[in-house]
Amino acid sequence: MLEKVNLKKIMMKEEYKAIAGQLKPRLSALQQQMKEAKVPVIILFEGWSAAGKGSKISDVILNLDPRGFKVYSTVDPDETEARHPFLWRFWQKLPIAGEFSIFDRSWYQEVSTARLENALPKKELARRIEEINHFERTLTDNGYLIIKFFLHISQKEQKKRLSALEESKATRWRVTKTDWKRNRRYDDLYQIYDEMLEQTDTPYAPWRVIASEDRNVAMADIYQTLVKEIGRAIAQRPERDAQAAAYQGGIPASRFQLVETPKLCDIDLNRTLEPTIYKEELKKCQAKLKKLHGLLYKEQIPVIVAYEGWDAAGKGGNIKRVAAALDPRGYEVVPIAAPSKEELGRHFLWRFWTRLPKRGHITIFDRTWYGRVMVERVEGFCTPADWARAYDEINEFEKELTDWGAVIVKFWLQIDKDEQLRRFEDRQNTPEKRWKITDEDWRNREKWDQHEAAVNDMLQFTSTDFAPWTVVESNDKKFARIKALQTLIAAIENRLK
Amino acid sequence: MLEKVNLKKIMMKEEYKAIAGQLKPRLSALQQQMKEAKVPVIILFEGWSAAGKGSKISDVILNLDPRGFKVYSTVDPDETEARHPFLWRFWQKLPIAGEFSIFDRSWYQEVSTARLENALPKKELARRIEEINHFERTLTDNGYLIIKFFLHISQKEQKKRLSALEESKATRWRVTKTDWKRNRRYDDLYQIYDEMLEQTDTPYAPWRVIASEDRNVAMADIYQTLVKEIGRAIAQRPERDAQAAAYQGGIPASRFQLVETPKLCDIDLNRTLEPTIYKEELKKCQAKLKKLHGLLYKEQIPVIVAYEGWDAAGKGGNIKRVAAALDPRGYEVVPIAAPSKEELGRHFLWRFWTRLPKRGHITIFDRTWYGRVMVERVEGFCTPADWARAYDEINEFEKELTDWGAVIVKFWLQIDKDEQLRRFEDRQNTPEKRWKITDEDWRNREKWDQHEAAVNDMLQFTSTDFAPWTVVESNDKKFARIKALQTLIAAIENRLK
Repeated sequence: MLEKVNLKKIMMKEEYKAIAGQLKPRLSALQQQMKEAKVPVIILFEGWSAAGKGSKISDVILNLDPRGFKVYSTVDPDETEARHPFLWRFWQKLPIAGEFSIFDRSWYQEVSTARLENALPKKELARRIEEINHFERTLTDNGYLIIKFFLHISQKEQKKRLSALEESKATRWRVTKTDWKRNRRYDDLYQIYDEMLEQTDTPYAPWRVIASEDRNVAMADIYQTLVKEIGRAIAQRPERDAQAAAYQGGIPASRFQLVETPKLCDIDLNRTLEPTIYKEELKKCQAKLKKLHGLLYKEQIPVIVAYEGWDAAGKGGNIKRVAAALDPRGYEVVPIAAPSKEELGRHFLWRFWTRLPKRGHITIFDRTWYGRVMVERVEGFCTPADWARAYDEINEFEKELTDWGAVIVKFWLQIDKDEQLRRFEDRQNTPEKRWKITDEDWRNREKWDQHEAAVNDMLQFTSTDFAPWTVVESNDKKFARIKALQTLIAAIENRLK
Repeated sequence: MLEKVNLKKIMMKEEYKAIAGQLKPRLSALQQQMKEAKVPVIILFEGWSAAGKGSKISDVILNLDPRGFKVYSTVDPDETEARHPFLWRFWQKLPIAGEFSIFDRSWYQEVSTARLENALPKKELARRIEEINHFERTLTDNGYLIIKFFLHISQKEQKKRLSALEESKATRWRVTKTDWKRNRRYDDLYQIYDEMLEQTDTPYAPWRVIASEDRNVAMADIYQTLVKEIGRAIAQRPERDAQAAAYQGGIPASRFQLVETPKLCDIDLNRTLEPTIYKEELKKCQAKLKKLHGLLYKEQIPVIVAYEGWDAAGKGGNIKRVAAALDPRGYEVVPIAAPSKEELGRHFLWRFWTRLPKRGHITIFDRTWYGRVMVERVEGFCTPADWARAYDEINEFEKELTDWGAVIVKFWLQIDKDEQLRRFEDRQNTPEKRWKITDEDWRNREKWDQHEAAVNDMLQFTSTDFAPWTVVESNDKKFARIKALQTLIAAIENRLK
């Protein structure tokens, strides 16, 4: 893509002033409209060292209300970041609806300069490119606008700028050995950048390569792009929302190979476990899991355990039996309730991405990202297009986590309607259990059939070989606990092999 | 305190079983009551290496619902943590009302083992001790329960345990050179621990030294303490709340030396600035501030700018003129709105502590922690005891930040009632400004006199020499912007000297 850029173009001051004088106030006004239309915008600046990323960002933000944007400067990942998937630190920084996140360098560092310094295996490079494309697609599918600038200058111009910076005492510190090394290896990096641009120039998040030798040319191009793209995103929002709300296409065919899972009506809920056997098994499983936890830490393997199930299916007690075997310094239980305003304003996976375990740790989710295709679907908290698309968004999420090295274990705790009623009534009639039962539980129960249909779809469309569902027969809690423990142990042992 | 502990005590298994059999279910039940009473509980385990902190925590949490507690293991601060005040990383980990945070080692590392390894100057030690005591006092004053265990064993016992750990292959990795070094220097560390316990054994957060050579003795003591203290905190909560609501004592005398500040009615609001002079001054100030921002980064000095003022006083525009001079990679504007559920459930300073700049960065708060003594006071969002106590809690907060090295600049943007009306009407009548005005603004305006009284108290009781208020005459926006810029510049220059 780089070869098409005309770096020779220049623009006179007067012309630029006339253009900028029109565009800057429009950008300011758009920020307000963006807020009302709840469009979140990500702008990223990539490009050569000394191409002027920092000063262009400074220019742009002068037109913005500082309460509505954040600027993030990307450097090498710190220790905590390095113990997470490479996109983790960028997920953290997603803007809330109506605001900007502006990146001075971004996730593209991981597929460009990172290649120059440490030769990246081809497979790893391909994986990162793919994850970046997925990342940008799922963001834009969920209403984000992503504007990607690549600031282009020639080797000669770069050399000139680096020298100029070095000459002044005030700016000398900004030029590093790495800058010079990269200038010398301009041709190699050119190749790398060009490949990166080609492979990540998508319809949903296209690149804008900016000729950056002439500042006026560059800034005019940047302002034009911002005003046009943000304006378009705002204008298209109502129709887009209407389409999503009217969507009737059902669940699209999966891009993943799915594993067969039984329907809920075919589950045998008569399975039980004798109390004495339960006691023995529990002890044995917990001892084993405890040992495995140490090995996971040693091998720096992250584990994600997802608990879903009917109200009163026994998730809490089941989780407790797992947690009891674990070193408290190495695991966390994350209960998931209705999303907060902060969470609602972002991609639905945001609150899960930000709570992932680091390598060597275990996170147990008590309810999960599957809320999207269960309660949100049944209650209409998201549009039909949103939940229909979510199955594969979730598969992708889990695929990336397993590629990163995680073990994912997903439990559906199944009970039947009669058993739920018994437990609800028991809760209602036992003073110290009454807090556990709410009106919402009764309301959910009324929609049992709708929920059951949603659960069946979920089991069918999100059981993959890298993250299969385990349906846990839970009419007998003892049986359920041992089955969950054994499943988790087997998954970890399998990974450690 | 350590010399009073009888390490020789032992307890037979049967006795312990009987005691624990009673206490454990009570602890489980208390967790639910705690949730209902909204009491947040902090439990910390300090003590000698190999005294059994980890295993005691594991034992305790077996009785708890894993969705209601988090365990934090304290190691050395990471890079980001080290660039913040030393209590910063612990503020992050405060439990929400009704839940537990359990610390395996805690902020006491910074005044105990830290002294053994790097001789801590006396003054720095005293400062840390004082900050810890303030930290615990403000937490307990605001409804937290803090239970502090120190697990005590003798040098001989420690040596025996370290050797035993080393003998088994499975546990050998847990024993480090540092452990052995500390065992050899047991007497020195004994002295340090003893001093630490003496100096931080307060009525609001007393130490419980646990004889930990016999596991049964230790666990029985721990369970008894937990059940007793949590039970008491829950039982006392209603009366405590009633007292706080009925408090009529007004603002207590400050523990700090206060600086005189004019009352709002004495401010001369006729001050203006000619547009041409404004333009010149703005340019000059921004150029200067830009340069200072670089120096702040170089010297790793954090800056905190606090903006308060009447609705429509011009905070947004004023902040914009400051932000425009700054490198976007080194500052952040934090708009403060009504607290979220997450924030409401914690100490009122929590959401500010977690958003402090790191060394070398600038954070501009658009509204601040002073909400506690303004809107929360006027609207009754907290009790009279809460806001009356908050003045000095805030002074303490700001004192600690300046001791850490921060520059704090606080602006009150003052306009008169007529000017506010003019601006409200202008907003109402200008379509593109209408979003700026809400019903709440009009409602606040009706309570002008109550707000004015609160502001006068705030200026009087929180102007200190380390963090004085600057009242900015803002009927003329131009005058106000230049005054704010100049004040900020002067404060930074003063600090750089």
